[in-house]
Amino acid sequence: MSYPARVRVVEVGPRDGLQNEKGAIPVGIKAALIERLLAAGLTTIEAGSFVSPKWVPQMADTAELLAMLPARQGVSYPVLVPNLRGLEQALATGRVEEIAVFGAASEAFSQRNINCSIDESLRRFEPVVARALEHGLRVRGYVSCVLGCPYEGEVDAAAVTRVAAALAEMGCYEISLGDTIGTGTPLKARRMVQAVAAKVPVGHLALHFHDTYGQALASILACLELGVSVVDSAVAGLGGCPYAQGATGNVATEDVVYMLHGMGIETGLDLDRLCEAGALISSALGRETASRVARARGAVGAG
Amino acid sequence: MSYPARVRVVEVGPRDGLQNEKGAIPVGIKAALIERLLAAGLTTIEAGSFVSPKWVPQMADTAELLAMLPARQGVSYPVLVPNLRGLEQALATGRVEEIAVFGAASEAFSQRNINCSIDESLRRFEPVVARALEHGLRVRGYVSCVLGCPYEGEVDAAAVTRVAAALAEMGCYEISLGDTIGTGTPLKARRMVQAVAAKVPVGHLALHFHDTYGQALASILACLELGVSVVDSAVAGLGGCPYAQGATGNVATEDVVYMLHGMGIETGLDLDRLCEAGALISSALGRETASRVARARGAVGAG
Repeated sequence: MSYPARVRVVEVGPRDGLQNEKGAIPVGIKAALIERLLAAGLTTIEAGSFVSPKWVPQMADTAELLAMLPARQGVSYPVLVPNLRGLEQALATGRVEEIAVFGAASEAFSQRNINCSIDESLRRFEPVVARALEHGLRVRGYVSCVLGCPYEGEVDAAAVTRVAAALAEMGCYEISLGDTIGTGTPLKARRMVQAVAAKVPVGHLALHFHDTYGQALASILACLELGVSVVDSAVAGLGGCPYAQGATGNVATEDVVYMLHGMGIETGLDLDRLCEAGALISSALGRETASRVARARGAVGAG
Repeated sequence: MSYPARVRVVEVGPRDGLQNEKGAIPVGIKAALIERLLAAGLTTIEAGSFVSPKWVPQMADTAELLAMLPARQGVSYPVLVPNLRGLEQALATGRVEEIAVFGAASEAFSQRNINCSIDESLRRFEPVVARALEHGLRVRGYVSCVLGCPYEGEVDAAAVTRVAAALAEMGCYEISLGDTIGTGTPLKARRMVQAVAAKVPVGHLALHFHDTYGQALASILACLELGVSVVDSAVAGLGGCPYAQGATGNVATEDVVYMLHGMGIETGLDLDRLCEAGALISSALGRETASRVARARGAVGAG
């Protein structure tokens, strides 16, 4: 076991972080947030999703937002796409180089989150992924509920592995393993990743852990020891899942980066600027940042 | 590297957690908190300190509190004692079986916290420890600033080792290594413990990490891998250090126990009852618990 020398941080704040917010967030605020995230050095910033605005009204402005974002060499703004219709909308923007499809490791969660069985969701993703690849897009696959389900409780690592392998087989270049409700603990996380890595090489795996129970950093640490080198996080610990009660908060980007830098692991990110980005959005939302690092440094938002 | 099968949790909430509170806390509340902590299965509950009430007024009622606590087989209520005068006060209560002395790994912190150099502090502790042992007390040694100092920044592991070894040599049965300002990260924590363990066997070491930067659980995890099996924590994440700015919050007992149980490590503690104890004190303080587990379970205090 050894740690990676460098970790790529995938910022999911503008999408996973904000999708569950009740109040309207002006598109200009989202664009300003993303500009600050760019300034901090982030190169993968999930910007939105092309899902039904009936289900996720907060993401209805994704096309408008994409049009406002600066084009930068080496920077991508992935968007979530559930089906061919969403893919067409993404392609129509002319600004999308990467999409993500999202499956679940739990049947009950799949039914409630995307209204179909796991197998049906995989069948639906197949033409989406194929068409995206034809258009030269990169495709990322999410698996949610990898360490627990709000409806089923414990989730078998074999179920996670099956979905992850199917998504990789379709052509997803990376599989992001989501502890959607944040109930995971370090050894369970490590064992789950080990199980998945037997089918999908560890270099194609990312960790997407919510910090609901305060366990995310410890679980990330346990998985970094396996060589995983991609971590999803949201500045200011934004976020939650609209269909999973209690699933408040992605792990804060600031806290992840503080840990990684303290371990001598490179990220290419500037922690001061990350805290500034977190302060901007916390202030706009009128609430205190959920990042412990940002709080300790006094870079908290209003509220 | 392997994890311990069982971890002993030392609850420091009533002392380290409350010592820095500005408002008066009725002694009855403290006693009620400790009764709840006992009900959760804790057997070592740091109850107070015999230091000058001029410096730490919140602990001025320690003798009164000790008189209110139930005598239980296998349960101890350690108190902090800085000098012979404090020891006499502790002995006079007839209720103290264990004391703790507290040194620092940083010269600047030692000067500001206890008004003397590290060497002077060690000379002062010698007769205190000797006399406590004569009276059949157990003595625990604290070393603060083991991973960083608010005045000096980085702290050398050799400085930590020197103080820890001196305290062990005097007769302290256990040395608690305090990341007083919570700036430590997992690998630094592990390397520091490894350095100390070369002089003081790992079975005599405890981890006392503050969660200021959200790193405590990850750092505890990294040190458990070395075989350390004693963790200090405070229910509801109470606490801070009156002399260290930004040193807010011991790691929450609930969060530690959730992680340990999730890893299959026994603690003998009941998480539901821990959350009840945390809810009691959070409510009394009129603020939300800092425990993520307690928040996720909805067992939050008022405020």
